[in-house]
Amino acid sequence: MNEARSELSRATVVAPDRRDQWARDGALHDQGHLLMSCQDGPGIVASVTAFLQARGANIVQADQNSTDHEGGKFFQRIVFHLPGFLDRLPALEREFAAEVATRLGMEFRMTAAEIPKRVALFVSKFDHCLLDLLWRWRRGELPVDVVQVVSNHPDLEKDVAGFDVPFAHIPVFKATKEQAEQQQLDLLDGRVDLVVLARYMQVLSGDFLHRVGVPAINIHHSFLPAFAGAGPYDQAKKRGVKLVGATAHYVTEDLDEGPIIEQDVARITHRQSVREIARRGADIERVVLARAVEAHCDDRVLLNDTTTIVF
Amino acid sequence: MNEARSELSRATVVAPDRRDQWARDGALHDQGHLLMSCQDGPGIVASVTAFLQARGANIVQADQNSTDHEGGKFFQRIVFHLPGFLDRLPALEREFAAEVATRLGMEFRMTAAEIPKRVALFVSKFDHCLLDLLWRWRRGELPVDVVQVVSNHPDLEKDVAGFDVPFAHIPVFKATKEQAEQQQLDLLDGRVDLVVLARYMQVLSGDFLHRVGVPAINIHHSFLPAFAGAGPYDQAKKRGVKLVGATAHYVTEDLDEGPIIEQDVARITHRQSVREIARRGADIERVVLARAVEAHCDDRVLLNDTTTIVF
Amino acid sequence: MNEARSELSRATVVAPDRRDQWARDGALHDQGHLLMSCQDGPGIVASVTAFLQARGANIVQADQNSTDHEGGKFFQRIVFHLPGFLDRLPALEREFAAEVATRLGMEFRMTAAEIPKRVALFVSKFDHCLLDLLWRWRRGELPVDVVQVVSNHPDLEKDVAGFDVPFAHIPVFKATKEQAEQQQLDLLDGRVDLVVLARYMQVLSGDFLHRVGVPAINIHHSFLPAFAGAGPYDQAKKRGVKLVGATAHYVTEDLDEGPIIEQDVARITHRQSVREIARRGADIERVVLARAVEAHCDDRVLLNDTTTIVF
Amino acid sequence: MNEARSELSRATVVAPDRRDQWARDGALHDQGHLLMSCQDGPGIVASVTAFLQARGANIVQADQNSTDHEGGKFFQRIVFHLPGFLDRLPALEREFAAEVATRLGMEFRMTAAEIPKRVALFVSKFDHCLLDLLWRWRRGELPVDVVQVVSNHPDLEKDVAGFDVPFAHIPVFKATKEQAEQQQLDLLDGRVDLVVLARYMQVLSGDFLHRVGVPAINIHHSFLPAFAGAGPYDQAKKRGVKLVGATAHYVTEDLDEGPIIEQDVARITHRQSVREIARRGADIERVVLARAVEAHCDDRVLLNDTTTIVF
Repeated sequence: MNEARSELSRATVVAPDRRDQWARDGALHDQGHLLMSCQDGPGIVASVTAFLQARGANIVQADQNSTDHEGGKFFQRIVFHLPGFLDRLPALEREFAAEVATRLGMEFRMTAAEIPKRVALFVSKFDHCLLDLLWRWRRGELPVDVVQVVSNHPDLEKDVAGFDVPFAHIPVFKATKEQAEQQQLDLLDGRVDLVVLARYMQVLSGDFLHRVGVPAINIHHSFLPAFAGAGPYDQAKKRGVKLVGATAHYVTEDLDEGPIIEQDVARITHRQSVREIARRGADIERVVLARAVEAHCDDRVLLNDTTTIVF
Repeated sequence: MNEARSELSRATVVAPDRRDQWARDGALHDQGHLLMSCQDGPGIVASVTAFLQARGANIVQADQNSTDHEGGKFFQRIVFHLPGFLDRLPALEREFAAEVATRLGMEFRMTAAEIPKRVALFVSKFDHCLLDLLWRWRRGELPVDVVQVVSNHPDLEKDVAGFDVPFAHIPVFKATKEQAEQQQLDLLDGRVDLVVLARYMQVLSGDFLHRVGVPAINIHHSFLPAFAGAGPYDQAKKRGVKLVGATAHYVTEDLDEGPIIEQDVARITHRQSVREIARRGADIERVVLARAVEAHCDDRVLLNDTTTIVF
Repeated sequence: MNEARSELSRATVVAPDRRDQWARDGALHDQGHLLMSCQDGPGIVASVTAFLQARGANIVQADQNSTDHEGGKFFQRIVFHLPGFLDRLPALEREFAAEVATRLGMEFRMTAAEIPKRVALFVSKFDHCLLDLLWRWRRGELPVDVVQVVSNHPDLEKDVAGFDVPFAHIPVFKATKEQAEQQQLDLLDGRVDLVVLARYMQVLSGDFLHRVGVPAINIHHSFLPAFAGAGPYDQAKKRGVKLVGATAHYVTEDLDEGPIIEQDVARITHRQSVREIARRGADIERVVLARAVEAHCDDRVLLNDTTTIVF
Repeated sequence: MNEARSELSRATVVAPDRRDQWARDGALHDQGHLLMSCQDGPGIVASVTAFLQARGANIVQADQNSTDHEGGKFFQRIVFHLPGFLDRLPALEREFAAEVATRLGMEFRMTAAEIPKRVALFVSKFDHCLLDLLWRWRRGELPVDVVQVVSNHPDLEKDVAGFDVPFAHIPVFKATKEQAEQQQLDLLDGRVDLVVLARYMQVLSGDFLHRVGVPAINIHHSFLPAFAGAGPYDQAKKRGVKLVGATAHYVTEDLDEGPIIEQDVARITHRQSVREIARRGADIERVVLARAVEAHCDDRVLLNDTTTIVF
């Protein structure tokens, strides 16, 4: 869980000169996101609101949740508009920590909406999740910048070429897994804010998750916790369920046990073979993964222990 | 539209001694709802938050929406906890008006969560929406107190009897519609906060809507604006649509044109007759109406001209 | 599995004089259902079709499925119209067995659509599934005749009274479970075609399932195989899933492992408490159970080992 | 309507030497589809079944529907396995016409499952429906062979290039529409079995529809009949609906009035701008269109006047 949890407190890496597919129309200029979590208690909202108003920020949107109004945990996401925000961000982070967060025992993250998250996509042979993310990115639908595709197979290199993203073929075998992961780490070092496993059929080691230092999101092709592990569509056919699903979750060392970000299902019938079920499922996988990546990169996901708050 | 719009600014009628199916477990004691709308601009959230904090209120939940961050309209709903709220409500309303609302040109409504809305259910012969609401009310699922059932037919009197609610049979014919509506108005006068048309197959006149002085919610058995008017399931069968739906909306003088609160759909096939489609649709109608009534009575619906904001 | 499987080969009990909520309008008069399963191979459809045509039957609807066209299992449901069918049913069953079924190693069931299945509803304290089935039955929506309600608690007696169905309160305690099940068996003996567990919170013993001699359908309040066992909504909240579901299945000795007939889900969020999730889930439970009961009683469900074919 | 209707009786154009993305694994070899419609009456199923059995065909799947069992219209689709079917198809068509269809006043179509339908995709500037169909085709998910892309804009030429399909840029202006359509007709002449309008923002003339001689399927970005015409997402936002949808339908001269093949919806909220609604809708459009194209090309769609039977 440490890897996923670190997502909240990790400092934002700002790279204002990189290619910006996301905010090209300037709509998000001067817009800030503030994510917070702390023990619930009176006065939190007022403190945060006063801090922002004193700096001339206009609150554009606010969401909050409390697990229990007495002794529970409090979560909030604020979207605000503040002229010159990007330049002022480092100072604002320091001031917010000093004036509000420390006093309230608060974890927080402050980011600039116009800076897309830098993403590496990991994939094996199935193309549907990869292509869907690349295509949404190209359309400017996602607050991301895809900086690298990594695959343990060479099959999808040609497809990726059309999107003008580097494709690294790093084979992974039992005997060479450690070296392969080292290669991956070297490749990504300091260059990404998020790893997305877009049907990557290898298990990432705990060591990799720890060292990569950014969250990873996986798509599992079942409605978890049903059909964890291998061959979920075969399992679904065998059990005779009437719906199949997909689950996007943060990756932790416990396979298929990470905090769930998004899920959805589709109806199937006895008529469909496993192959046809897999096709139907693929349509769900790609939208579930895209929604999870969008929510995460739009700073709408907060961790509450082993579950998520998605604003 | 005036009738529906008046919902926002109408004063809350507090009747603390009436039978309380809703908050019997005390969970909602001391909880207040504050609904606001005004022109967007800087400082609104901070003003409202400061007002509440100065009185010792703890903000439990907050939702807001802005139609356009420059020159748009701003909507907010705040749920707060304040000891002794029910007794303090009249004074707080006055103070909020004087200190915040007037200055910001704000419409607002402040209510106590523990006081259920008093509801009259209008029905003709179909029982599914009526029974579903009565059953949810009895289970304590809805923040309502059903005080009266009104029907233009005697058929459902026996069913209603089991729920210990008065049933008024007021026949409506073309020639006697005016008197019938007068009877209805006399019956409801000062006793209800909401009228729910739970498959009431008569059109309420503009005069009735004006004089009843509280909002009315209707369930239409189609996915509006498709298949407005009579016989939507017949129309759906004839047009060959693959889904049928239901729409809960505020009642205005323009039939089937009122602000939509909730909608949902169900899949149908060529196999189903109009009668079977109507059965499938009935399952959707009852849940759509129940969700709309719950949202309205939980003070989660705000009007934005001819549409709704549902928090 | 034996209990559930016996559903296919069990002889139809015809009771033409009983109260008929179902086919009162005569629409189903002279309509027969023929359900078959056997090893797949050439000529099956032609043999069955020829048998029916030779007797003057008009095939109104036909569905079929083959698990594998070479060496798989074949399933078919035929709806046909045949003047005087109800009187001719016993002779037709004998002839079909002799001329078609035996030769093809076929299991089959032939029933008259106008004869509703006699159903016993088992319930504990939650009323939503029970009331929903009783409402639908009273409206003539289901091809059933509810002949008995059985509960281990007295709470719902008054509700059932309004539907004019006998209510048997048979308490079940650990020490007395055997006698309680004997009481249940004595009560149902020869009177029912189906047992429906409409949120009955007791596990039926293998001995009961064997001796009752008719299938039993249960509603489980999760999307099986996720969250089998006790407290599925608590489990769902704890795991942080984004959808909750319900599953209707045939009851076997392996708890929550019986063949699934129908499932559906509803979206939930981090905002909802376990209690609110349970309310949302209840809306799904009742429709899933009603659809499963309708499918079974309309002779649309066939067993394929541990899964179902639902035509 | 004539254009769409002609789909049923049109002869299949067999081109066994063309590139075959669809049946490359041989799974569909020797498999035939038989679609029929006629006035309902006794003996139809038996006649058809006997015809097939006499030729050694094994019925693999059968679906049928009757609009009314007395005097209604009968529809059937049969999938059968027959060794050497492709070679025998022309003779079988003649024999079926002579021995069965003429006598029963039946329209029918007999096709080989292994021959994919030849499809032309028409598109303007939005890429999501086009790319989705090209991806699915390349993966072998659809029983189609995309032989041509036609666009009134040059924008998507590069995207199409990666799929190795000819891209024809044929600009359409008011003054030149007639010549443009002539160019399109010349290009497609004898080469296609289906035209798919994958967000083609031009209205095809009645003359074009008549002369192209094959059916055309369009995707409209609303839940028809709601929001026909231009700007459906703008209309949806303005009306305040809670769901947006998409509709795939056969193209007729009456814009947005053709027989509906498939529809689906997605939930939206007041938070979403028209642009965000359009993105959400795009996810629905592409799957609805893909399902409709698959159903049509798998010979599962039959016309019943202005509606469809989709088996």
